[in-house]
Amino acid sequence: MSHPHQQSRQIISAILQSRPAIERVYFVGCGGSLTGFYPAKYFLDCEAKKLAVGYITSNEFVHATPQALGENSLVILASQQGNTPETVEAARVARAKGAATVGLTFAPASPLCEHSDEVIEYRWARYPETVNPAQQKAAYGLWLALELLQQTEGYAHYEAMVNAFEQFEEVVREGQRKVQEDAQRFAQAYKDDKVIYMMGSGPSFGAAHQQSICILLEMQWINSASVHSGEYFHGPFEITEEGTPFVLLQSEGRTRALDDRAIRFIRQYGGKLQLIDARELGINALPETVRDYFCGLFHTALLDVYNLALSQARHHPLTTRRYMWKVEY
Amino acid sequence: MSHPHQQSRQIISAILQSRPAIERVYFVGCGGSLTGFYPAKYFLDCEAKKLAVGYITSNEFVHATPQALGENSLVILASQQGNTPETVEAARVARAKGAATVGLTFAPASPLCEHSDEVIEYRWARYPETVNPAQQKAAYGLWLALELLQQTEGYAHYEAMVNAFEQFEEVVREGQRKVQEDAQRFAQAYKDDKVIYMMGSGPSFGAAHQQSICILLEMQWINSASVHSGEYFHGPFEITEEGTPFVLLQSEGRTRALDDRAIRFIRQYGGKLQLIDARELGINALPETVRDYFCGLFHTALLDVYNLALSQARHHPLTTRRYMWKVEY
Repeated sequence: MSHPHQQSRQIISAILQSRPAIERVYFVGCGGSLTGFYPAKYFLDCEAKKLAVGYITSNEFVHATPQALGENSLVILASQQGNTPETVEAARVARAKGAATVGLTFAPASPLCEHSDEVIEYRWARYPETVNPAQQKAAYGLWLALELLQQTEGYAHYEAMVNAFEQFEEVVREGQRKVQEDAQRFAQAYKDDKVIYMMGSGPSFGAAHQQSICILLEMQWINSASVHSGEYFHGPFEITEEGTPFVLLQSEGRTRALDDRAIRFIRQYGGKLQLIDARELGINALPETVRDYFCGLFHTALLDVYNLALSQARHHPLTTRRYMWKVEY
Repeated sequence: MSHPHQQSRQIISAILQSRPAIERVYFVGCGGSLTGFYPAKYFLDCEAKKLAVGYITSNEFVHATPQALGENSLVILASQQGNTPETVEAARVARAKGAATVGLTFAPASPLCEHSDEVIEYRWARYPETVNPAQQKAAYGLWLALELLQQTEGYAHYEAMVNAFEQFEEVVREGQRKVQEDAQRFAQAYKDDKVIYMMGSGPSFGAAHQQSICILLEMQWINSASVHSGEYFHGPFEITEEGTPFVLLQSEGRTRALDDRAIRFIRQYGGKLQLIDARELGINALPETVRDYFCGLFHTALLDVYNLALSQARHHPLTTRRYMWKVEY
């Protein structure tokens, strides 16, 4: 497998060679394969001066296909096994409309690959400690976004971003070591809760949402919602009372102030708060200009530790399912 | 007050006169003032061939201001009282970056107006039955989106859309009459639930999310999350067991199939399901080419009936708050 940097650069270069006028990128997937693209979407939403960005669950992309989709679009899709029917169909639809497609999958030669102009086989993090977090699915999304921006409009902090990727595994491993004990404490404190609210902002909102839908609802059967730290004060905060369980993924950089405000409020009114602070856990080892954009990947990697502890404390393995792999749907 | 159609047409026309190259529109607000823009955002995401669309909570727009924001951007903001600090600041930031701003508010001469090139005073639906739903905040958002599309790229179904707006109040009143009894039944069936999942897809996903954050969490203190009907099968469905409470806003048109699939599954596995079906309740009186785009507004108007019944059955008025209007935050 070639290095994600080389691979992403070559893929975007090949696409732009045949389609120099790419003006729109859509990130498409389902569940964790969609939320995995959140860091990439957020990066382009912030930094692109011209590119338009879409982020759509596969079946909505299939049924309510955007009129803007066409030859000047790039559609980046992900499916773990490469056989999610909605995502495979989305890739087919994208191509039928003339768009370029890049498929990310763990499974070579899967149906998604048939409809992808370019394929990336990422490394699946079933045993997260064995895979470089800069080579996992969400990191590939961010690599592709970086290359697309650099090769179309240019990006002032391109080198800093490449350097940050190189440093990222070390930062993650150090952060994971730091949270081991806290994860045990968290697991004991939250194991009997009937609902857990996930919060975050900016680059980490996607990680908060992913934790809510893919871990708490799917793998732990704990009621959950994700609440943006900035939206909290405009409705959701009324649910806060003594002991209401929150987990807040505090990011570093521009939207940190939004998290700070929510933290103050939750503490003042007695909510039960688990804070996972990217700053305190080491994200600042990365270059200041780009560290924001790694917070989502960082939080997801740290949550691996918390989730293992939670599942053990609850005697509910992360592989337990009621429906997936078991029934037709 | 002039007719929303004339007013929106004139506002967009005036903006385009001084800025003929508008290529990007951002919808900005907090809580219900953001979700009110969902129908407009969805319409443009589907129908625009060139316009890029952003949809951002105010404080994130302020702190992580997109690089693309500039003279060729239009920023449409809403604040009920015109004094939400984050939204007022977002309007100021937008203007400082050279963008055009349109402010929607119920309160004339409020701070939002100071930073808005154009102002729309909408009619507040404190007593929803007294205000034409085609003249409420969310409808104005859709009117502005329609005019922006028509006056920049053109829109094939512009006339159908204008006609649909004209018919809309009658369709809503008829729908509201039809659900009176069902709302009472719903209120009894759901009044003791500790969590309620709101679902929807396409044009009605915003209404589902709004119901979750502004009504269930904020006004009723019932735990809640919104789940897109297409995302349901990729994580959230594992929470479903006998009696799990769902409310699904079934829309008409292209994404209806996504709702159908979720409905079948919830019924098969014993979830408690309240369906609010736009088709059955009369949305099809609107022209087929555009009726999708009214489903969100339609569902929100129908939910007014359900919410009043729910609040009465729970002896928990919709105006009850722990924090809003009471404490500093």
